[in-house]
Amino acid sequence: MAEPIVTLDEIRKILRELPGPDLDAATAVATREAQLTKPPGALGRLEEISAWLATWQGRAVPRIDHPRVAVFAGNHGVAALGVSAFPATVTQQMVQNFINGGAAINQLCKSFDADLRVYEMALETPTHDFTQGPAMDEEEAGRSLAYGMMSVEPGLDVLCLGEMGIANTTSASALACALFGGDAAYWAGPGTGVVGEQLKRKTEVIAAGVQRHKDAKDPLDILTRLGGFELAAITGAVIAARRARTPVVLDGFACTVAASVLHRLDPRLLDHCLVSHVSAEPGHRRLLQEIGKSALFDFGMRLGEASGAALALGVLKAAVACHTGMATFAEAGVSGKS
Amino acid sequence: MAEPIVTLDEIRKILRELPGPDLDAATAVATREAQLTKPPGALGRLEEISAWLATWQGRAVPRIDHPRVAVFAGNHGVAALGVSAFPATVTQQMVQNFINGGAAINQLCKSFDADLRVYEMALETPTHDFTQGPAMDEEEAGRSLAYGMMSVEPGLDVLCLGEMGIANTTSASALACALFGGDAAYWAGPGTGVVGEQLKRKTEVIAAGVQRHKDAKDPLDILTRLGGFELAAITGAVIAARRARTPVVLDGFACTVAASVLHRLDPRLLDHCLVSHVSAEPGHRRLLQEIGKSALFDFGMRLGEASGAALALGVLKAAVACHTGMATFAEAGVSGKS
Repeated sequence: MAEPIVTLDEIRKILRELPGPDLDAATAVATREAQLTKPPGALGRLEEISAWLATWQGRAVPRIDHPRVAVFAGNHGVAALGVSAFPATVTQQMVQNFINGGAAINQLCKSFDADLRVYEMALETPTHDFTQGPAMDEEEAGRSLAYGMMSVEPGLDVLCLGEMGIANTTSASALACALFGGDAAYWAGPGTGVVGEQLKRKTEVIAAGVQRHKDAKDPLDILTRLGGFELAAITGAVIAARRARTPVVLDGFACTVAASVLHRLDPRLLDHCLVSHVSAEPGHRRLLQEIGKSALFDFGMRLGEASGAALALGVLKAAVACHTGMATFAEAGVSGKS
Repeated sequence: MAEPIVTLDEIRKILRELPGPDLDAATAVATREAQLTKPPGALGRLEEISAWLATWQGRAVPRIDHPRVAVFAGNHGVAALGVSAFPATVTQQMVQNFINGGAAINQLCKSFDADLRVYEMALETPTHDFTQGPAMDEEEAGRSLAYGMMSVEPGLDVLCLGEMGIANTTSASALACALFGGDAAYWAGPGTGVVGEQLKRKTEVIAAGVQRHKDAKDPLDILTRLGGFELAAITGAVIAARRARTPVVLDGFACTVAASVLHRLDPRLLDHCLVSHVSAEPGHRRLLQEIGKSALFDFGMRLGEASGAALALGVLKAAVACHTGMATFAEAGVSGKS
């Protein structure tokens, strides 16, 4: 990671100036929806998705011609504490797998014609062990946020976010615990597959981190102390997407926790975000209750790497295709309600 | 509808000779799945879908290159009793909308490169009013079943089924009630949008039909007496698909009821079927409990015309893309569990 960098105070200023919903677009999409050849509301969630896309794209006619999937990869100091089923070297190996096209996310992006970007974040330099001190300093957090913001470029119709990072469910669980309360065991889960004594150790690491940083001054400070480079980048990407009027699709537990830092500042900051799936990681369902979001899928997935978010693109594309391609009652000569 | 025709006794014979799962294919797909670069089981339902497709396609490597969506349209004698929010003429008008490419199902088929076939079933001649006598005679039921069987051709990788027919949730509710018990109100729902007094009348029609045909001798006889041309065609398509080793994706309430006629004969007869979504029609969730199926989506959809089934193609294609395209741990040089 080189420049750019943004300070946390600059982030706080940006957050105060982000745009709200485009109500003209929302009205336009609702007006057309009511004329399409189907009983009102019969496409259920697909209609909600069209309306949400139009409202946050700021367009009367939503579109999904240019979807991007951004996967951020980072390493964690707490990996050395034995909290994961896989060694920390797997983060780099999986990034190479993404580059070679061999991972699940590559196949999903191909299925839905999405542009995949993989952002490697100083994998040779993990964050600090948060049980001993802050995971990042303010400069590292600011650099990570700025790095994530770069994933948003003009012309994107939707941004799907995800992560890769051995031990990052430990970091995400600590973040969730510090942001929303509850004890460490409530937020801890198997991640890539830890159970028994190892899950107990993971829970202790989470509890120690939360305890050590209990005086953090606000959600961005919590992110700095307990998060990771890839998680802060996701937070940054969510902010930049809002500023660029790009709707966001969130993936599983770690990704949603990173976005939830903003929810804790102001729940409306996630109104341009949709959660693709509820992960098998038990903390995810709990987190979705906290942030009041209902996921599209409940498929027992727990892979990360934006896999659930990319999978949602099929549904988003279908929703837009129905909204934009269907005939109206008048065009089709179909009778309305008798 | 012209020839062919099949007698109900011939159907009963065919049912006894249908193939079971291909266990060699099931073993092959599980063996490959375990080697792919992800924690075991991390793709959740996507892994189950790959395994299900392989098992019922009878192929070690599942594929979804040639999906077909078949929509059957029929008219119902009970429509004259005022059980729908729309006039019966809408069935024909919507078929024309399908042909012109203006309906939701057209956009969904385009989104997922599916071949759409629309089967018009004697729309000028509705079934008989089942409160006065059998909806169909045995010859009409046999002709409808045979017609549905024709939708299965060699080379299809999956068959998505759906229906269009004003008043057919009345017929489907009566069928569900006769097949699975419970009272008419338990199975009745708003369909295209009936409420209050009209829903009460619809419920009375269902109750009267079930009462009149309470001596039906078996599920196929129940289908004949309370079903419709398009519903019997769906039953036939499910049978023919099993014989041809073509997995089936079911749509909402009316479609799933038509398939459930077979479940009542032998639950294993629906093992090659996946339910795409749970409809907003309340009877659908109840029916899924009866047949022990868990839908992919819970999107509050209630359109019919195979819309939910076609939407599922995105997920099926993604599942197959992951299973077939991902690198193994050995190929990618990724470390396994530590």
